[in-house]
Amino acid sequence: MQTLVPFSATNPKTRLSPTLTDSERTRLSRLMLQHVVETLTTVGYEPTVVTTAPLAVSLPAVADTVIDSQPLTAAINARLGAEPTLIVMADLPLLTPATVGRLTTDAEITIAPGVGGGTNAVYIREPAFRVDYHGASYRDHCQIAADCGATVETVDSRRLATDIDEPQDLVEVLLHGEGRVRAWLEDVGFELETGDGRVQLSRST
Amino acid sequence: MQTLVPFSATNPKTRLSPTLTDSERTRLSRLMLQHVVETLTTVGYEPTVVTTAPLAVSLPAVADTVIDSQPLTAAINARLGAEPTLIVMADLPLLTPATVGRLTTDAEITIAPGVGGGTNAVYIREPAFRVDYHGASYRDHCQIAADCGATVETVDSRRLATDIDEPQDLVEVLLHGEGRVRAWLEDVGFELETGDGRVQLSRST
Repeated sequence: MQTLVPFSATNPKTRLSPTLTDSERTRLSRLMLQHVVETLTTVGYEPTVVTTAPLAVSLPAVADTVIDSQPLTAAINARLGAEPTLIVMADLPLLTPATVGRLTTDAEITIAPGVGGGTNAVYIREPAFRVDYHGASYRDHCQIAADCGATVETVDSRRLATDIDEPQDLVEVLLHGEGRVRAWLEDVGFELETGDGRVQLSRST
Repeated sequence: MQTLVPFSATNPKTRLSPTLTDSERTRLSRLMLQHVVETLTTVGYEPTVVTTAPLAVSLPAVADTVIDSQPLTAAINARLGAEPTLIVMADLPLLTPATVGRLTTDAEITIAPGVGGGTNAVYIREPAFRVDYHGASYRDHCQIAADCGATVETVDSRRLATDIDEPQDLVEVLLHGEGRVRAWLEDVGFELETGDGRVQLSRST
């Protein structure tokens, strides 16, 4: 079994630009990558980070890094085939070892959808399956699995659903996260603002 | 064991007003209530709807309805004590029987947090525990449980985390929902719009 963590190294997380500077977005994306890779190694996996450009990030020794400048979908599909493959996105700061364990089911395709229809993790045991990360990929992946005649299981996990794309997503890290990502957000001044509705993000300057 | 479903009958779901008319918000809130109550009865519970005003909604025969005009927190706390109690919010259109099953753990307090720090469901087996639904209630409920010396388990469920407060939440119903709530959203013209980022909501007129 192989474990892949795709990583977009250049100008990451643009939708956070109302809230974070360019260098902060770069820093956050690398901290989240470290968190995901370390969590995967904690449960015994040896992840390969598939990155669009060289990375200066300290990762566990069992993790490998390969540079592939193709778009995400092509870079991943070039590595799919007979070997069972777990693909986990690099922006999941609520990932825990227990959550990772929920991804390896008996189904031929196990999908953890993200908020807004993305695919935050997928475990592939069907050799003909290929990914398509453009647009509403959760639906597309269910359809691709059906086209392969593969069984599908969808993981019902809030932690796996919480990828970080928009400022409000950072609220979930401050509420439920542990470790380096949350610590950094607090270090740079983010905090929770409680009112009548959902908790909001604020930043002390 | 008792099962309570609090329901705010008057001017519901005000944060959906950019997207839905007053009568549509009323209709949606009642469809979601029906969905939650029916799902609970499917797994053998006999829920009591605690509503702020009389309701003209068809509910399963095993469901009971009581009118309590107090604020939510007071209305619920008036019913807590020695009897184990499951409290499930009325705005969870992704609730399924399997998801309900995850709420009854061996912990004295089991909490399913909502997006943004709310408490979408709580299963209480500690007689001294009381709820506080104001503000960031997930954190407050963890603290109240600690003050009681009660064990706490947090349920990691995307379906339980998805309450409907803001227009973007409706995307999740169109992506993952089944049954009457999704069917109604489609009937009144909502559909998904796929682009590069998260799926967005659009409405045909």
